[in-house]
Amino acid sequence: MRSVNIGICGLGTVGAGVFNVLGRNSDKINARANCNITVTQVGARRDNANCDTSGVEVSRDIFDVTRHSDVDIIVELIGGTTVALDLVMSALENGKHVVTANKALMAAHGTEIFAVAQSRNLIVAFEAAVAGGIPIIKALREGLSANRINWLAGIINGTTNFILSEMDSKGRDFVDVLEEAQQKGYAEADPTFDVEGIDAAHKLVIMASLAFGLPISLEGIFTDGITRLEPQDVSYARQLGYAIKHLGIARQTAGGIELRVHPTLVPETCLIAGVNGVSNAVMVNADAVGTTLFYGPGAGSEPTASSVIADIVDVARTMGSSPESWVPALGCEPSALQSQNILDIQDIETSFYIRFSALDQAGVLSSVTKIMGDTGISIEAIIQREQPAGETYVDVIILTNVTKEKFLDEAVEHIEKLETVRGRVNFIRVEHLDQ
Amino acid sequence: MRSVNIGICGLGTVGAGVFNVLGRNSDKINARANCNITVTQVGARRDNANCDTSGVEVSRDIFDVTRHSDVDIIVELIGGTTVALDLVMSALENGKHVVTANKALMAAHGTEIFAVAQSRNLIVAFEAAVAGGIPIIKALREGLSANRINWLAGIINGTTNFILSEMDSKGRDFVDVLEEAQQKGYAEADPTFDVEGIDAAHKLVIMASLAFGLPISLEGIFTDGITRLEPQDVSYARQLGYAIKHLGIARQTAGGIELRVHPTLVPETCLIAGVNGVSNAVMVNADAVGTTLFYGPGAGSEPTASSVIADIVDVARTMGSSPESWVPALGCEPSALQSQNILDIQDIETSFYIRFSALDQAGVLSSVTKIMGDTGISIEAIIQREQPAGETYVDVIILTNVTKEKFLDEAVEHIEKLETVRGRVNFIRVEHLDQ
Repeated sequence: MRSVNIGICGLGTVGAGVFNVLGRNSDKINARANCNITVTQVGARRDNANCDTSGVEVSRDIFDVTRHSDVDIIVELIGGTTVALDLVMSALENGKHVVTANKALMAAHGTEIFAVAQSRNLIVAFEAAVAGGIPIIKALREGLSANRINWLAGIINGTTNFILSEMDSKGRDFVDVLEEAQQKGYAEADPTFDVEGIDAAHKLVIMASLAFGLPISLEGIFTDGITRLEPQDVSYARQLGYAIKHLGIARQTAGGIELRVHPTLVPETCLIAGVNGVSNAVMVNADAVGTTLFYGPGAGSEPTASSVIADIVDVARTMGSSPESWVPALGCEPSALQSQNILDIQDIETSFYIRFSALDQAGVLSSVTKIMGDTGISIEAIIQREQPAGETYVDVIILTNVTKEKFLDEAVEHIEKLETVRGRVNFIRVEHLDQ
Repeated sequence: MRSVNIGICGLGTVGAGVFNVLGRNSDKINARANCNITVTQVGARRDNANCDTSGVEVSRDIFDVTRHSDVDIIVELIGGTTVALDLVMSALENGKHVVTANKALMAAHGTEIFAVAQSRNLIVAFEAAVAGGIPIIKALREGLSANRINWLAGIINGTTNFILSEMDSKGRDFVDVLEEAQQKGYAEADPTFDVEGIDAAHKLVIMASLAFGLPISLEGIFTDGITRLEPQDVSYARQLGYAIKHLGIARQTAGGIELRVHPTLVPETCLIAGVNGVSNAVMVNADAVGTTLFYGPGAGSEPTASSVIADIVDVARTMGSSPESWVPALGCEPSALQSQNILDIQDIETSFYIRFSALDQAGVLSSVTKIMGDTGISIEAIIQREQPAGETYVDVIILTNVTKEKFLDEAVEHIEKLETVRGRVNFIRVEHLDQ
């Protein structure tokens, strides 16, 4: 049997998972790859107590691994976009195929990396970069290759989904749950990347590129996090039959591509509304297949290792064959990729949930509905919450039908100017995900 | 660009879908396959009004297509296991690769078909044979290749899921819903294949083979349908927090493989409990990734075509490369497949829902709980339904903890012999799908 040698760079949580699963399941993995996959080199600044590397050469300089003659595939698991970029380029320059879990690197430098790989007849694989253990890259690139994809919508950050699930099921507020998530290790000490939607944005542009045949680019993507989400919105949403999820949404429209990450009301009857905790799920709607959903763990040592190793098996099996028979990184030849207009958030059409505080007196609702009518927005439901006796202000909640966001903004501006309305008007986008 | 020519045999619902989607999305499909995919031949006993085949050579003898020099890939969509077997064998003998949606053929004759294909360096692909448009074969074979799979459980027959969903949401009975399903075209005039679980059994053995590295075989599989399911069980299950789904379950245990298709209580909090209507979903639990779920349309013209064409793209891209670089039909080389003991249903361990009718008098429950104790079964919950005044019998519902089915059978036999119990004791297996 052929041998394929692996160099793992980075021995953190995921690196240890890859090392351990490759060892534990080598019988299954080698039978599926039809070759002997062996980790011959590890590059890591320090050892990992969860991982026994005795018998394997460990370099403190990860670049030693990329230059080593005894390595066929470099597994990049150091993260970040600076050293990791140099590392991947060094691997390619040294004739090594690359498997990576690095979404930030793919989102920022995918195009140049794929170009170098192609010019050298090398493979760069990145299943683990999106949605952890869920084989969503393979599904978009190969499983749904017959389709014109209409849209995809995903819970693609486990940290934010954990926080939202806790806010929802226990009525807790954002800061409180974030602290717990940090203690449990679900959230970083600096949680900005997760809770502001930056991590989700990286994953979304990778998926959008595969779905719509676009060069990978973060340009034009709209990103909003969950930090301003209030418990009463989560609760009101439930009362209206919706769950609030932090979704990455990409949609092909006649005028261009929607690319947006934001909190979203989704109907409780929609399968993705039931995805709780640190899990991820991606819905894909396409012209032939209709709607599909892919669910699983979005992070973690061995779930991510599962995707990294699936890539290793694919690369190991096919690396000896002609590059024309390989699945291109983004599903089609780079020459077939085409940029499209990315829609400004103002031009996106969706429904909205609106909440504001208004004086509990006659005429308030009629001035609000007049504003909505004047801006061309039709109302699906309007609810005035009963407040405890003595309160002079009540919460008003409105669900709109589909409208352009710029019209919503216009209406919001007018409502905020009403003397009967106190403070700002909060709104959250609503998606029915049914067509 | 290279050309790859397709011969479609069978122009029914799926055949027309494949023909139409290949035409409509040819730009996307060709870019992804990196070649021009053209339908050059169609074999069909009659035309299909949903499909304009002008410009394509149509033979009334499907075997003409397999012998035609202008065809690289035969798409078998005639169904059944007799002529279809001859057709596939003829295709292979004539040096054509094969793509099929035929679960019955794969389940009954997969082993011999794969052997012939391998000896002639040809590919046989069958994504569409399981779960319609869901790319579950690719997920099991490639996406989860790092894993030792523990179990899988799927709603893999849309007809039964539609019937159960209607029984559940509207309290209707089986026969009533079946009639509607037949009128709507969701169920065949002879629904036996669907409602008795035979179709699900075919799909389950294909997935089990991929998951556990077994030669495909229907031997030893336990199959029970939904025809004896009563509306009150669906309703009682709901009151206890469960949905009843018709699942195909395959599990690796120390003593061998469980392979079973039957109605199953699953907790409402489990994502698969929310899969309604004609949709399919497959849960896969594996050692590295944990639990994943794949959801989508389980049947229909274009959803099935989506999977057929994904296979065509894979075959078209790789057929020119060395067979060693191909993904083997069942995920590993045939020589690596190993039969395992298939457990008898009597030796399977699970929890149970039990319902019977008992006299509403003191001492009945204590005799029942004594029987359960004597057979070593521990009870999780026991509920005695309040009946309208004047009724002398009441429904008793018991949820057990995990036990071997043979002990449950023993208990049932004893309970049925009690003078205070009327009629038979109904039981349904319960799966928590949480580990």
